[in-house]
Amino acid sequence: MEGLIDSIEYLMQKRDYVRLRQLIEGENEADLAAVFDELFDRYSDEKRDTLAVLFRLLPKDMAAETFSLMNSEMQEALIGTFSDTELKEMLDQIFIDDTVDIIEEMPANVVARILKNSTTGARRAINEILRYPRDSAGSLMTIEYINLHKDMTVSESFAKIRRVGVNKETIYTAYVTENRRLIGVVTVRDLFMADEDDKIGDIMETNIISVNTHEDREVVAQIFEKYGFLALPVVDKDMRLVGIVTFDDAMDVIEEENTEDVTKMAAIVPNEESYFKTGVFRHALSRIGWLIVLMISAILTERILIHYENIVQGIPILIALMPMITDTGGNCGSQSSTMIIRGLALGEVSFKDFFKVVFKEFRISILVSAVLAAADGVVIYAVYGHSLALAAAIAISIVCTVIMSKLIGSILPLLAKRVGLDPAVVAAPLITTIVDTCAIIVYFNIAMRILSGA
Amino acid sequence: MEGLIDSIEYLMQKRDYVRLRQLIEGENEADLAAVFDELFDRYSDEKRDTLAVLFRLLPKDMAAETFSLMNSEMQEALIGTFSDTELKEMLDQIFIDDTVDIIEEMPANVVARILKNSTTGARRAINEILRYPRDSAGSLMTIEYINLHKDMTVSESFAKIRRVGVNKETIYTAYVTENRRLIGVVTVRDLFMADEDDKIGDIMETNIISVNTHEDREVVAQIFEKYGFLALPVVDKDMRLVGIVTFDDAMDVIEEENTEDVTKMAAIVPNEESYFKTGVFRHALSRIGWLIVLMISAILTERILIHYENIVQGIPILIALMPMITDTGGNCGSQSSTMIIRGLALGEVSFKDFFKVVFKEFRISILVSAVLAAADGVVIYAVYGHSLALAAAIAISIVCTVIMSKLIGSILPLLAKRVGLDPAVVAAPLITTIVDTCAIIVYFNIAMRILSGA
Repeated sequence: MEGLIDSIEYLMQKRDYVRLRQLIEGENEADLAAVFDELFDRYSDEKRDTLAVLFRLLPKDMAAETFSLMNSEMQEALIGTFSDTELKEMLDQIFIDDTVDIIEEMPANVVARILKNSTTGARRAINEILRYPRDSAGSLMTIEYINLHKDMTVSESFAKIRRVGVNKETIYTAYVTENRRLIGVVTVRDLFMADEDDKIGDIMETNIISVNTHEDREVVAQIFEKYGFLALPVVDKDMRLVGIVTFDDAMDVIEEENTEDVTKMAAIVPNEESYFKTGVFRHALSRIGWLIVLMISAILTERILIHYENIVQGIPILIALMPMITDTGGNCGSQSSTMIIRGLALGEVSFKDFFKVVFKEFRISILVSAVLAAADGVVIYAVYGHSLALAAAIAISIVCTVIMSKLIGSILPLLAKRVGLDPAVVAAPLITTIVDTCAIIVYFNIAMRILSGA
Repeated sequence: MEGLIDSIEYLMQKRDYVRLRQLIEGENEADLAAVFDELFDRYSDEKRDTLAVLFRLLPKDMAAETFSLMNSEMQEALIGTFSDTELKEMLDQIFIDDTVDIIEEMPANVVARILKNSTTGARRAINEILRYPRDSAGSLMTIEYINLHKDMTVSESFAKIRRVGVNKETIYTAYVTENRRLIGVVTVRDLFMADEDDKIGDIMETNIISVNTHEDREVVAQIFEKYGFLALPVVDKDMRLVGIVTFDDAMDVIEEENTEDVTKMAAIVPNEESYFKTGVFRHALSRIGWLIVLMISAILTERILIHYENIVQGIPILIALMPMITDTGGNCGSQSSTMIIRGLALGEVSFKDFFKVVFKEFRISILVSAVLAAADGVVIYAVYGHSLALAAAIAISIVCTVIMSKLIGSILPLLAKRVGLDPAVVAAPLITTIVDTCAIIVYFNIAMRILSGA
């Protein structure tokens, strides 16, 4: 991208707008949007005005798409330089769902300007989409789809697609409705493979897979992955077609949901912006909540440790080996919780598999703990003056800690899911603290029993 | 899905094959494949034979797609029941890239049968795709794309798509080549919007975004996300078109790469199968490697702790608060490493941002540590007999631990990436152990200095 940026800046400086226009005309809109974002970040407030000049050089059809792919700061700055006529012209070219995405990031005065300059139809659609919960299918959908009638022929359908297609987000899947109810789906591929005189009603797919407007966007993404669709119809409770979700939006959801899960599992409050776009203060804020909770709850382990003070004084080696026990427990617990949280997110595991999961993790933990205990026992025996009692105490503690950690790690996410909490938020950050506390109790009790006799 | 399974089993038992056929004809292939997989798991070896009967009831065009969506065990069992003629017939209907996916999971004798029953052209293509590295664009691609010539008119192109489209994985993007070199891309949407007599050479997009056969599949997925393409051309080093990757395969890659990263970050060796499909032994094996490494390295902290034995004996409260310090350090470290590992995976962060990242994490850690130290200091002061020295020692230790952990957590993944290692594999599991060791040293040194005077 550096080469493109350099060329653009060079021609801007020379004010060679003819060649500049030729250059940017040949580029992809997504790349141009990235250039605008990058220059916006680099430039001072004053110099940012030149970006409006650059934007005006774009051909109409490219301008709208480039605009809708930019970051919201860049968009807001450009809207500030638009006249009402210019804004209206561009909004006409942008798909409704993209307009909604833009509106969601803008301050109120800009939103008002956008709505004022949208057509009545668009304004109604925007308001409708904005009504749906943020993570619902309704908020993801666009209303710009191709609608066919079951009595149309294939060639009539082709004519309609040609006529109205330019304003539709996808033309490759068309929807057949009767009294607004969705009764069939037909792809352009089906149309190509059919005869010109075939009726849509005869070739359409009537086993329709659709989602309700209030369905969670995670489920929407799972359907796209399972069926490989280009678009998915969104219906209301009476099976009336209200919009479609297209695969590119589903892909964004998959990536966003994945980022969210990974972030939550690291005890961070998720945030839609990228790492560098997020300010230091915002980063700190999103991390501090769990840290305080976990820190304060870790003080509780102090109460437990104080309880075993006589051991601490008598056999200092036990305290010195404690981090090994708690770390191993923490690692085992997060292995299990990660597998289950991921399984839940992909829809491979659900709460009804509770006993199957717990039994599986139990068997895994037997195998894992046996190997770990053997390895640890041998090392401890070799290093610490061939004390069989110490080696046994550590090995038995490892076995108990591993089994316990894996059970906690698998049960906690399932329970969280069951009571309607997000497994990634609840289970992952708590695992270490819970496992630590339990491991310390188990460890000192076992050690006390074995070593007090030794 | 339970309802569908029940209906199928009911009609199978009644041997009502007419109504059974009617039932399954109306279902989606992805759902039917899931039914086959589910019944395969439930049934005994003997009863599995009835699944071959069920499969033969499927209409030809549905059979191939259903087959390619099944799990490999089910596929292998079905191939075992096919005659050579049946196998040949079905392979004709399956896209080359799906055949390659099937082959990759089959034992050698089944692979030989598949190759024997493929057409010469298909066999050559399969062998070519199998030659590419497992995670490369070449191994993902299909060779079944639509090829146009720049001198063709739009209506000639439509005729060609209609003629050859049935065997192509996507018909919505066509590729224009000259002497096998890729010179343009044209979508069916472009064709619809053009005049019938327009020449392809005049309407095609010549700013082509393509990947090399050896490009990593993660980069392929990033391009799909960035540009929202339906298909991406794969070229050799001389820009000759060798195949295309379609968006559904890219979506699978995104999900697989995400699962891989999450698993690796939890110190587990990734595995392509789902949670339940993976056996207990395999699960244990994939988790044990890192656990042993981390457990043995945690024994090192024991050497450090023994060094501070006199403090342990003198001020037991310090030992009792140690888990709080090390847990907080571990949590801070994994917050930072997770953010950086994710940023690297999404292409938002790269090694050249080294100083920018470190400086950002440093500022974040100042904010976070100040808040944590204040909270902790107050709690410790209130709970432990108003000892200002103890509260100060803990607060200062927290500040140092948090700053250090966040720096280690951000630097480690970047370094791993720099030397060509996978950040998720190297950085995430090691963070806790490294941070623990450093935190303990920092903690006892600070405590010793402050409290020995108190």
